Amino acid sequence: MIKASVLGATGYAGIELIRILYGHPQVELTHLVSNSFAGQMLSSVYPNFKGFSDKICSELDIEQIAADSDVIFTALPHGTSDEVIPALYEKGKKIIDLSGDFRYNSVEIYEKWYKTKHAHPELLAKSVYGLPELHRRKIKESSLIGNPGCYTTCAILGLAPLVKNGIIDTDSIIIDAKSGASGAGRSLSPDLHFCEAHENIKAYKVATHRHTSEIEQELGVLAGKELTISFTPHLLPIKRGILSTMYATLTGEYSFEDVYSLYSDFYKGEPFIVLHQEDSLPQVKYVNGSNMCHIGFVIDKRVRRIIVVSALDNLIKGAGGQAVQNMNILFGLEETTGLLNPGWYL
Amino acid sequence: MIKASVLGATGYAGIELIRILYGHPQVELTHLVSNSFAGQMLSSVYPNFKGFSDKICSELDIEQIAADSDVIFTALPHGTSDEVIPALYEKGKKIIDLSGDFRYNSVEIYEKWYKTKHAHPELLAKSVYGLPELHRRKIKESSLIGNPGCYTTCAILGLAPLVKNGIIDTDSIIIDAKSGASGAGRSLSPDLHFCEAHENIKAYKVATHRHTSEIEQELGVLAGKELTISFTPHLLPIKRGILSTMYATLTGEYSFEDVYSLYSDFYKGEPFIVLHQEDSLPQVKYVNGSNMCHIGFVIDKRVRRIIVVSALDNLIKGAGGQAVQNMNILFGLEETTGLLNPGWYL
Amino acid sequence: MIKASVLGATGYAGIELIRILYGHPQVELTHLVSNSFAGQMLSSVYPNFKGFSDKICSELDIEQIAADSDVIFTALPHGTSDEVIPALYEKGKKIIDLSGDFRYNSVEIYEKWYKTKHAHPELLAKSVYGLPELHRRKIKESSLIGNPGCYTTCAILGLAPLVKNGIIDTDSIIIDAKSGASGAGRSLSPDLHFCEAHENIKAYKVATHRHTSEIEQELGVLAGKELTISFTPHLLPIKRGILSTMYATLTGEYSFEDVYSLYSDFYKGEPFIVLHQEDSLPQVKYVNGSNMCHIGFVIDKRVRRIIVVSALDNLIKGAGGQAVQNMNILFGLEETTGLLNPGWYL
Amino acid sequence: MIKASVLGATGYAGIELIRILYGHPQVELTHLVSNSFAGQMLSSVYPNFKGFSDKICSELDIEQIAADSDVIFTALPHGTSDEVIPALYEKGKKIIDLSGDFRYNSVEIYEKWYKTKHAHPELLAKSVYGLPELHRRKIKESSLIGNPGCYTTCAILGLAPLVKNGIIDTDSIIIDAKSGASGAGRSLSPDLHFCEAHENIKAYKVATHRHTSEIEQELGVLAGKELTISFTPHLLPIKRGILSTMYATLTGEYSFEDVYSLYSDFYKGEPFIVLHQEDSLPQVKYVNGSNMCHIGFVIDKRVRRIIVVSALDNLIKGAGGQAVQNMNILFGLEETTGLLNPGWYL
Repeated sequence: MIKASVLGATGYAGIELIRILYGHPQVELTHLVSNSFAGQMLSSVYPNFKGFSDKICSELDIEQIAADSDVIFTALPHGTSDEVIPALYEKGKKIIDLSGDFRYNSVEIYEKWYKTKHAHPELLAKSVYGLPELHRRKIKESSLIGNPGCYTTCAILGLAPLVKNGIIDTDSIIIDAKSGASGAGRSLSPDLHFCEAHENIKAYKVATHRHTSEIEQELGVLAGKELTISFTPHLLPIKRGILSTMYATLTGEYSFEDVYSLYSDFYKGEPFIVLHQEDSLPQVKYVNGSNMCHIGFVIDKRVRRIIVVSALDNLIKGAGGQAVQNMNILFGLEETTGLLNPGWYL
Repeated sequence: MIKASVLGATGYAGIELIRILYGHPQVELTHLVSNSFAGQMLSSVYPNFKGFSDKICSELDIEQIAADSDVIFTALPHGTSDEVIPALYEKGKKIIDLSGDFRYNSVEIYEKWYKTKHAHPELLAKSVYGLPELHRRKIKESSLIGNPGCYTTCAILGLAPLVKNGIIDTDSIIIDAKSGASGAGRSLSPDLHFCEAHENIKAYKVATHRHTSEIEQELGVLAGKELTISFTPHLLPIKRGILSTMYATLTGEYSFEDVYSLYSDFYKGEPFIVLHQEDSLPQVKYVNGSNMCHIGFVIDKRVRRIIVVSALDNLIKGAGGQAVQNMNILFGLEETTGLLNPGWYL
Repeated sequence: MIKASVLGATGYAGIELIRILYGHPQVELTHLVSNSFAGQMLSSVYPNFKGFSDKICSELDIEQIAADSDVIFTALPHGTSDEVIPALYEKGKKIIDLSGDFRYNSVEIYEKWYKTKHAHPELLAKSVYGLPELHRRKIKESSLIGNPGCYTTCAILGLAPLVKNGIIDTDSIIIDAKSGASGAGRSLSPDLHFCEAHENIKAYKVATHRHTSEIEQELGVLAGKELTISFTPHLLPIKRGILSTMYATLTGEYSFEDVYSLYSDFYKGEPFIVLHQEDSLPQVKYVNGSNMCHIGFVIDKRVRRIIVVSALDNLIKGAGGQAVQNMNILFGLEETTGLLNPGWYL
Repeated sequence: MIKASVLGATGYAGIELIRILYGHPQVELTHLVSNSFAGQMLSSVYPNFKGFSDKICSELDIEQIAADSDVIFTALPHGTSDEVIPALYEKGKKIIDLSGDFRYNSVEIYEKWYKTKHAHPELLAKSVYGLPELHRRKIKESSLIGNPGCYTTCAILGLAPLVKNGIIDTDSIIIDAKSGASGAGRSLSPDLHFCEAHENIKAYKVATHRHTSEIEQELGVLAGKELTISFTPHLLPIKRGILSTMYATLTGEYSFEDVYSLYSDFYKGEPFIVLHQEDSLPQVKYVNGSNMCHIGFVIDKRVRRIIVVSALDNLIKGAGGQAVQNMNILFGLEETTGLLNPGWYL
């Protein structure tokens, strides 16, 4: 059994990760660290765990965690795990970090978008961007994984085959993304007050959202050159799920079949990618509850654009599920272990 | 492996049952029967199954189903399985019926509330009411289970210890129940049109809902006498979950501890019952996604009433999950097999 | 023109009151007092006012308010208007208070349920409970109105004819109420975080909610004797609207027509009461956006109970609309002035 | 008083139009025509009208309607008013048609996108596109108004100043639009079943939605040349409101102030246009319930694009409110009459 600890256990990413780990046949949960709820039962904070777990949340004790864990998931706000991760890393532990701190190839890019100095550039250099569909091999050899953002995963997976195959103008990429409210976490804020978010939709952080830089990095690597994109996130009155509608100008005349075969070659054998046939497109309802990323597209010959729609569950393939997928790779397990539940549609 | 078929596979109860059976380690799904979608892939009707199942929905073929199945779940509108169930029963198959047809001890009661003649009173006599917490032993010995209704399960489990122990006036029972829209199924109706149901709540079938009779039957057995109740269902603008708020006059002075201990004795060892401590009450958020029934209560000394709140997921403990629990009992498996996932809170 | 000021302008009750006053043909808004947003334009806090109003929120200045206002609406948390109201009252202003402070006939009852000493019992003695359907005449003669609570208005209006006519056992009254989230106001709290409230329902403050005492007071006056009730509020995942489902034992055999005629006599000529015919019941969709209270009922002969369902918009008939109705009475205007808009259904 | 009749009174566009007309000080409602509910009271179909209106829905009787009406609003599915409108037009009545039939400058464009022959090209030639902000003068002189679509109004108003002033590349326009479910009307469909639409979002009719052609027509007129756009509609789990996020490449370097002043010049004096200052963007919450169209934008220098966000209430500025605005113009009333209510935020 793999002994796993979760730091930031009672945030939304944390609790969903715990839910997934709870059902993982080869994982034993050791420490559930929560500053806010240390000393309380997990099931009193999240009563859906009543009858399933009587574990108690604990304070952060790095020595103890290191002693008792094979892998540590850090689901803390970016920046707050600055001291924790190096300490655990030095002790030879495998770390899967769900913040933005270890997702970058370039310190400069990180510092520009996060507007803060990176606390550990030497560790950043050793970390791997944990998107298995692109970096499976490197992930296997690393022990510090920067688990991708939710918007990011959805956009990159939707566009990667187009960029890699050079069939779109990389200057033309526009990503219009819509996310459920759980992506913003459990911290109270006026925007997330029920009466403010319900029966509403809004765009936010237009042209400035940090995930832009992650998407540009990864698509840039695939393109073999730097590129810039437009990325607009929106807040939806739903709990879970991201839908990205993405636009790009095609570099030539391509049929649906042409493009479909590029996608299906690119994602050959990928267990968590679902391609939609012509006249079918992803919806968040299709992915909520599973680790799947659904991808579909329409070619609009009139304007010579492709419109790609991708969808995933922001808390699973966009956070905890992907983290477990990374863990499976790190430990040489079947990559799908503990992740083969269909979503719940209803 | 138990070979299981589902009749009415593409209704909401059917698809949820399939989702649960899909994750059951000892079940192999054989026939998924759907009149509306015969010949189509399940995953084209419910795309959350894309990447998980490539099974094709089939038409009803009783011979074939009987030949290939150890157990048949019938999730058809009441009345429509009239010819099917006797045919399968005669062939010695185990049947778990999710309609109202085999839930009654009395043909008269059924006919009064369903306003139709019962097609097979001789089978009704052999069927068992499939509420394991009350009838586990009989279920084990039967091969025709009338799987309880969703409102019914929620109300009976919440009140059973009070009635059994005679500490409430059985004439005073009032059940005010609130249900998510999935309880009404996938058939289109004006009430369930998005703009009609959203941002709304309504009471319906006040004093006439059929589940009243199921509740009266089961509480009557526990009380050892006939009783009548008030039952008011409400439609909520949520997908899943039932919350029942129930009122009864106490026959004497009881403390919270007194009553709590009656509940905890009554449900000793029950894997799917969660009792709430004082100052805590169930919410649908705590049970959605799991097979749990949460129960809590408040004693209002000022008016000498107890207010019991119970909650469950109408599609799981109120339908498919309970059906699988019954299947586990019928086949001598651990009762919790395939049912030990915490709900999803988010 | 009546010059009106609002204290607590940027809370949900305040802003809805302003919206109604904005459309009132005989009102001029003078001061909009908001501690949190003093100095800011109302339309920057609530951008639905952009293009309609360029008024600026101000700090509390009692002298100025008194000088410029004929009527002051105080929509402050209970207790916080303690010093303000006496000062304004002394200056001879008419005051309509939306808190609980001036709703009681008895200081003791207030202090028992609010667990605090009443700051101005001498003023409480002069105040009138502002439910026009019951106290229109007294309201006309008063200048301090305790505007009723939202749950309270819904319950009292639904039950008053039954209690007044003595056709129910007053010991048997049970009120199961369901409210939209705006009733809890704009202050952030974990319960009202979008992901916590959405796709959920919960009962809260069972047997202890303060509105219980208001309902008991008013029904007690109608009954001519003290009475106690059960009152259970629930939080719904909707913005607006209250639905109350109420149960009482009938003292005799009554037909629907018997009871309907009691209701229609009791509410003869009332502009804001809508009675539903047999086989029709209120829904919150029918009242959201209007000052109406809808009332319907079912007589369940089997158990000799009446089930009454009443519904209103908690922010209108349950707060700001009723306050304006009171203002109309105080100033001798047609009672319906500014309040005759049908709700919005969609 | 203007005598107004509504054909298609009980659809969502119809009922909202009636709600607005009900509050219009110079309108008397005469005939409310509804095939589905002829003979029934409007208030039994939409109980929010109980206590406000006792009008009865009638069958279509062209003679009678013409005799009793100064203006007729036709809110029928496109195509179904084919015989009605010419008959009324010949009798010299003013007609405001909410279908797509009279919105086109070119029969060919209509027939291409609607895939049907236009029944009355001679009338189409006389009709005017009823977007007052662009065609006020022509509207005044016409008696057949093609009232614009909801998506269309939102997109055109958001982009018009940019196109008119030639500061964007007209080949680069991408419109990503999100709409509430009321835009799809009251007819039952699987997509609009509560459990299918709730907690979901989906793109639909990608690259093929008819409103594309309306937008291209109007922007083309402003640009003085033909243009093609990308338009992607999405279905949101809300009742009302449209938010359009629109992308275009700027033809030069422009500051926020530069562009803001183009917008404010273009919309000078427009009562129903609200421009957002820098760092503020429209949300549907700001417009639901009013006839306003909110517009804001961000200039992303990094990619030399402008991102425009516009929002309106699809049932008001996107349907009934705009129709009444057109009526006001047709009859020489103040254009804002009956339309000056702030939206409801909550």
